[in-house]
Amino acid sequence: MANITKKVSWSSRADESGNTGEGTPLLNGSEQPRLSRQSSGGGAIFQIGRLSTVDLEEEISSEEDSLRGRPKEIPHNEKLLSLKFESLDYDNIENQLFLEEERRMSYMGFRCLEISRWVVCGLIGFLTGLIACFIDIVVEEMAGIKYRVVKENIDKFTEAGGLSISLILWVVINSVFVMVGAILVACFEPIAAGSGIPQIKCYLNGVKIPRVVRLKTLLVKVFGVICSVVGGLAVGKEGPMIHSGAVVAAGVSQGRSTTLKKDLKMFEYFRRDTEKRDFVSAGAAAGVSAAFGAPVGGVLFSLEEGASFWNQMLTWRIFFASMISTFTLNFFLSIYHKKPGDLSNPGLINFGRFQNDSVAYNLYEIPLFIIMGAIGGLLGALFNKLNYWLTIFRIRYVHRPCLQVIEAMLVAAVTATVSFTMIYFSTDCQPLGPEHSEEYPLQLFCADGEYNSMATAFFNTPEKSVRSLFHNQPGTYNPLTLGLFTLTYFFLACWTYGLAVSAGVFIPSLLIGAAWGRLFGILLASITSTGSIWTDPGKYALIGAAAQLGGIVRMTLSLTVIMVEATGNVTYGLPIMLVLMTAKIVGDYFVEGLYDMHIKLQSVPFLHWDAPATSHWLTAREVMSSPVTCLNRIEKVGTIVDVLSNTSTNHNGFPVVIQGAGGEEPAKLCGLILRSQLIVLLKHKVFVELARSRLTLRKLQLKDFRDAYPRFPPIQSIHVSQDERECMMDLNEFMNATPYTVPQDTSLPRVFKLFRALGLRHLVVVDDENRVVGLVTRKDLARYHLGKHGLEELQLAHT
Amino acid sequence: MANITKKVSWSSRADESGNTGEGTPLLNGSEQPRLSRQSSGGGAIFQIGRLSTVDLEEEISSEEDSLRGRPKEIPHNEKLLSLKFESLDYDNIENQLFLEEERRMSYMGFRCLEISRWVVCGLIGFLTGLIACFIDIVVEEMAGIKYRVVKENIDKFTEAGGLSISLILWVVINSVFVMVGAILVACFEPIAAGSGIPQIKCYLNGVKIPRVVRLKTLLVKVFGVICSVVGGLAVGKEGPMIHSGAVVAAGVSQGRSTTLKKDLKMFEYFRRDTEKRDFVSAGAAAGVSAAFGAPVGGVLFSLEEGASFWNQMLTWRIFFASMISTFTLNFFLSIYHKKPGDLSNPGLINFGRFQNDSVAYNLYEIPLFIIMGAIGGLLGALFNKLNYWLTIFRIRYVHRPCLQVIEAMLVAAVTATVSFTMIYFSTDCQPLGPEHSEEYPLQLFCADGEYNSMATAFFNTPEKSVRSLFHNQPGTYNPLTLGLFTLTYFFLACWTYGLAVSAGVFIPSLLIGAAWGRLFGILLASITSTGSIWTDPGKYALIGAAAQLGGIVRMTLSLTVIMVEATGNVTYGLPIMLVLMTAKIVGDYFVEGLYDMHIKLQSVPFLHWDAPATSHWLTAREVMSSPVTCLNRIEKVGTIVDVLSNTSTNHNGFPVVIQGAGGEEPAKLCGLILRSQLIVLLKHKVFVELARSRLTLRKLQLKDFRDAYPRFPPIQSIHVSQDERECMMDLNEFMNATPYTVPQDTSLPRVFKLFRALGLRHLVVVDDENRVVGLVTRKDLARYHLGKHGLEELQLAHT
Repeated sequence: MANITKKVSWSSRADESGNTGEGTPLLNGSEQPRLSRQSSGGGAIFQIGRLSTVDLEEEISSEEDSLRGRPKEIPHNEKLLSLKFESLDYDNIENQLFLEEERRMSYMGFRCLEISRWVVCGLIGFLTGLIACFIDIVVEEMAGIKYRVVKENIDKFTEAGGLSISLILWVVINSVFVMVGAILVACFEPIAAGSGIPQIKCYLNGVKIPRVVRLKTLLVKVFGVICSVVGGLAVGKEGPMIHSGAVVAAGVSQGRSTTLKKDLKMFEYFRRDTEKRDFVSAGAAAGVSAAFGAPVGGVLFSLEEGASFWNQMLTWRIFFASMISTFTLNFFLSIYHKKPGDLSNPGLINFGRFQNDSVAYNLYEIPLFIIMGAIGGLLGALFNKLNYWLTIFRIRYVHRPCLQVIEAMLVAAVTATVSFTMIYFSTDCQPLGPEHSEEYPLQLFCADGEYNSMATAFFNTPEKSVRSLFHNQPGTYNPLTLGLFTLTYFFLACWTYGLAVSAGVFIPSLLIGAAWGRLFGILLASITSTGSIWTDPGKYALIGAAAQLGGIVRMTLSLTVIMVEATGNVTYGLPIMLVLMTAKIVGDYFVEGLYDMHIKLQSVPFLHWDAPATSHWLTAREVMSSPVTCLNRIEKVGTIVDVLSNTSTNHNGFPVVIQGAGGEEPAKLCGLILRSQLIVLLKHKVFVELARSRLTLRKLQLKDFRDAYPRFPPIQSIHVSQDERECMMDLNEFMNATPYTVPQDTSLPRVFKLFRALGLRHLVVVDDENRVVGLVTRKDLARYHLGKHGLEELQLAHT
Repeated sequence: MANITKKVSWSSRADESGNTGEGTPLLNGSEQPRLSRQSSGGGAIFQIGRLSTVDLEEEISSEEDSLRGRPKEIPHNEKLLSLKFESLDYDNIENQLFLEEERRMSYMGFRCLEISRWVVCGLIGFLTGLIACFIDIVVEEMAGIKYRVVKENIDKFTEAGGLSISLILWVVINSVFVMVGAILVACFEPIAAGSGIPQIKCYLNGVKIPRVVRLKTLLVKVFGVICSVVGGLAVGKEGPMIHSGAVVAAGVSQGRSTTLKKDLKMFEYFRRDTEKRDFVSAGAAAGVSAAFGAPVGGVLFSLEEGASFWNQMLTWRIFFASMISTFTLNFFLSIYHKKPGDLSNPGLINFGRFQNDSVAYNLYEIPLFIIMGAIGGLLGALFNKLNYWLTIFRIRYVHRPCLQVIEAMLVAAVTATVSFTMIYFSTDCQPLGPEHSEEYPLQLFCADGEYNSMATAFFNTPEKSVRSLFHNQPGTYNPLTLGLFTLTYFFLACWTYGLAVSAGVFIPSLLIGAAWGRLFGILLASITSTGSIWTDPGKYALIGAAAQLGGIVRMTLSLTVIMVEATGNVTYGLPIMLVLMTAKIVGDYFVEGLYDMHIKLQSVPFLHWDAPATSHWLTAREVMSSPVTCLNRIEKVGTIVDVLSNTSTNHNGFPVVIQGAGGEEPAKLCGLILRSQLIVLLKHKVFVELARSRLTLRKLQLKDFRDAYPRFPPIQSIHVSQDERECMMDLNEFMNATPYTVPQDTSLPRVFKLFRALGLRHLVVVDDENRVVGLVTRKDLARYHLGKHGLEELQLAHT
């Protein structure tokens, strides 16, 4: 893996690093910072231990190497990716306009804002719950229809002996569903593929993923997930709920939809990254909550993925959204199930009640749990590794939509065929008792009053299978069935994840784990005396499910809480935690978690919690991008247009400087302005004609910036005449006059902590006279990461 | 309340503000910053809306006012408090020594550190669990003895008619226990009084409370809480567990005890505020976990109170400590209860299992729950208000240890007498069935085979009473008993909180709430038809307990999770959340939470999550302390000694500046050094004699600073000869060369966010030439807070 990762380098940092290209002159004419080309844009090489000199030739040659090598060595197009990933700004742009508005606002105004935040969170929870409910009901209805059609056919041909016709019918039905789902995703909205959890992780981390929170994405996601679940793929509908919740949140909180061209003129205050990200956290939490009936788990998920700064009120609002979401789902499902008011279905998946007395665990079982955790970690690592190779293959060869649709259909067909074959050859018949809750029993070659248990495991929705594995009486499954099922489902699930369909990996993981966990329990019972505590394999199914899921996704605290909430019983807290921890430690030894792996494969500049441990010998001076394109406080419009039009750099943040008297003094930092702000200024032509010293009539307001948010037009769409190019623009009122700065000698961990804790997008590096010498952006920090061999990875982390 | 709060002003900010007194000259001789005396040290007045000019005379007169007014208007001694409260530094001091050490450390070194962090957390959890176990067992044994003695006596005199002798016996026994507890607290360690939660909140917030995490405090706390619980006070033993856990954490993580004069030479890396505070968070979480069997609740408690920056690994470690803690308690209690391996006692209090089927709630009950939440909020506000007046009274008149002991004994006697009276006049007899788990039934005047239910409510430990109220069959209590019990226990608990005994308020709150909640349920059942869902009052007892506790302490998310974990059933998540939210909103309308109230009464500079909403018109310029005492990079020893000895200022942080060439250029900021560092430097006499240009032989190492941590000697204890005064000291290697800075125009919310998110202690304010103009410390920010009428409070927030 390390071998391949090295080739998958970070995307080129043309985005917002603010460094000029090789030949671009500094535009403001200020004195060049006296820094040597230690970390130039483009291809700085990093030398461990020696910070003094960098051989320029070596640098260039390495750059050429990477250019030459790219087509054959790097399987996917980085350039495209690097342009896609801008950052979100969790730091408020405190310019004069903003401060004036805040100062004008009364105490009651803030109270109203606070109340509307609660209202928005309530709405987010409600709508997310409704969506979950919709998905659940549609899937259930369609799966019912499918089952009846196939069952009739199978029953007909079991006697007659033409079961291959049933197989073909099944394959065709499944493939058609999956085809529809895959076409939706591949042709209309590729970002809706998969569970969406990696995308939401990135968004909450502060990376802007294009189109990830659009209405269209939501629609494709919802119908896509219905198709893939009904199509019998080895997927779950839980992961996509998290993405759906996030989209709902982004939409509701902005009070408008660009897709629908509707602006409700509400919640305009929330139209900026800071506020929007808070709501998206709430949406993701609501999604988790609806998926697993786990409101606390949802809050912790959001915090684990998103929060850099913990805020009590925010946490409480997120919790509110989660609660409303699970409550809404619960309420509407209770009506659907004709038991209105019975609030016992808090999530899409319900592990069922573990009765305390029947499945207590004992102290001496804990080593067994830890062993199961290790197995889960191993199997999870294997899963991830296989999926990694598959993803590399897909990026290389399966990138055209039609190929993606065909692959999805192929998987659907193979899934159906394999299932059918295994059912056909299975001889595991179980009595069909009244106490069994199997909704879809298939008799096949079993005697009357019995059903084929392999068929149950494959034919049920995965959610129901998980539940059966947890709760069915000992003896319901025979070990061979479970072993074969685990094996085939493992590979099917691994093949399925990463297809161009909307689907989650939570439920397949749980199912695989529950199957081998139950197997583990049965084997344990067979080698010990009967009647002992080991006899209930359901407990081991639960532990196995936790181990497998932990081995694949590697979440920690939130996953423990989600599992505990889904079982509805806190007794299993300690074992589940131990198992998840073991699975994580074992799995991390081999390969990282599935989501992190996919994030890395996308070359996303993802910031982890801390700077790499051994990075204290790096300082801001080495990390920053330099030189920086600066603007004057009162700048010529032509200059600004040129800077923004420079496609080779494509900067997003520009330090604003003030020249000393007479121009001989060096320029001091006095603010920071963003590309998006400049675009709005240019669009509204807020120019000062110096000759006639006349201002434009209209004064720009915060509303203008908010209306343009978040889809600021490109600079090319703004026409600036030659006359206007000669005008000046006064940035004073619009720039953030107090950007965060660090001295050049600040160590990387310190820079990292400041950057991460405050969710910054740009951090200006200044010398001891407050002159700009560089700019630190997300990509400058994400470049450095710790490999298995400590510092070794750093040498590869060039841009 | 507002009327009194106004008089309780913040403590005078002589601590670490770094501002010189009126007549003190700037020591480095640098150019005076060109700032007018807008916010001088001592008595800056704040003018809402007008920032331009400040009338100096007005300022002085106000200062005089406050001086004159203090003895009669302000009931407690602020001066003493203000000296007590220094801040903790959550920011690493990144000086050359530190960076060199970090750079020397290999990747394996960091791995070992990480592992030892886990080991420490495991130890913290284990020891905290053991302590909880010890307290629980001792209390149970002693309460059992007491019960048998009193019961025998009562049984003897019930027939004979001399029950007043029983009363006297009971009063004496209780008073003796409480006297021992109160003497321990009042004479040996006053900081061990109460639950310790406000103190831990402050510590995690970053305020150093003297002696709060010492071994002696722990001992007094543990034995104090045993005495007060056995003494029959209306208290619980859960709150003190949080404090105990924190002390354990502080001790274990440092690998030494100053009290015992033992240094294990372990964990020396952890001897600084940053690391220590992380471990204390884990300890507090372990305490919550042991107290309520709520590991997730413990983590959330720590995060809600302490975390400014969420870190995944830290959270996971805290969770580990919590899990180990509850597991240890559970394991040893199971041995004590002679059911080894039966892990069903995860906490000191155990709400018992709520069976899902018997106590489901329905949709139309939710409005009822919300009403109960409002009642809880009202009662909680009343409780806090009464306790507030009582505390003011105590600060004014009951401050001598002997008075405190007498008060505690008085409360014990009154508690016993009131209980006895109520038991005596109660005629509520209940049959003593085999299904009842009453451990201490008292027959009194009841028929044989019956017991007095009022006696049960008063005589049981509060934990058991709560459980009975939750789970006993409908009809076990009659409404009159419950009403009277609520009433008396309410006032007793209110009187008890704040006594000089170690005790918590959680259990009394739960008990009061459970009593009126059950009453509510019974009344509800009586007005509706029998046999309906309302018939189980246990459910309402639970909701009432949540409402009352929420109304008193006002915690939010963590309390929800604690309650849910303690009931062991996630079904009640939504109702409990709604109830807690309602209670908080209603209660906050009247008066703040009990802990916050006590923190405020102590004049602690506590930082909330956000800056006050309407503070955008304040900037760093107005907030900061100015002028600042600066030091030169190479400073004369005599100057340093003088600065440190200046008792009128008592600064803790000094910006280090560098003079421009020739001395005509203004001095630029180049670092920050702390008092504690200077003390160590002086102690080790790290002087440079310029004349002979010779260095002292020994090079100072980080170890020297760590050995001195956290009890740095006072400057008075360090003897510096006249010759040595003429030497120079090179601060270059020891100062933090890259302190965080903000420009003068930064708005208060921005300063606040930076300060709070990074857990800073000093924030240097610089002008646009990087010259020091001021210093922002915790007290400068804590001064501003939002009252009920928005900005009005700001005028009172002078130092």
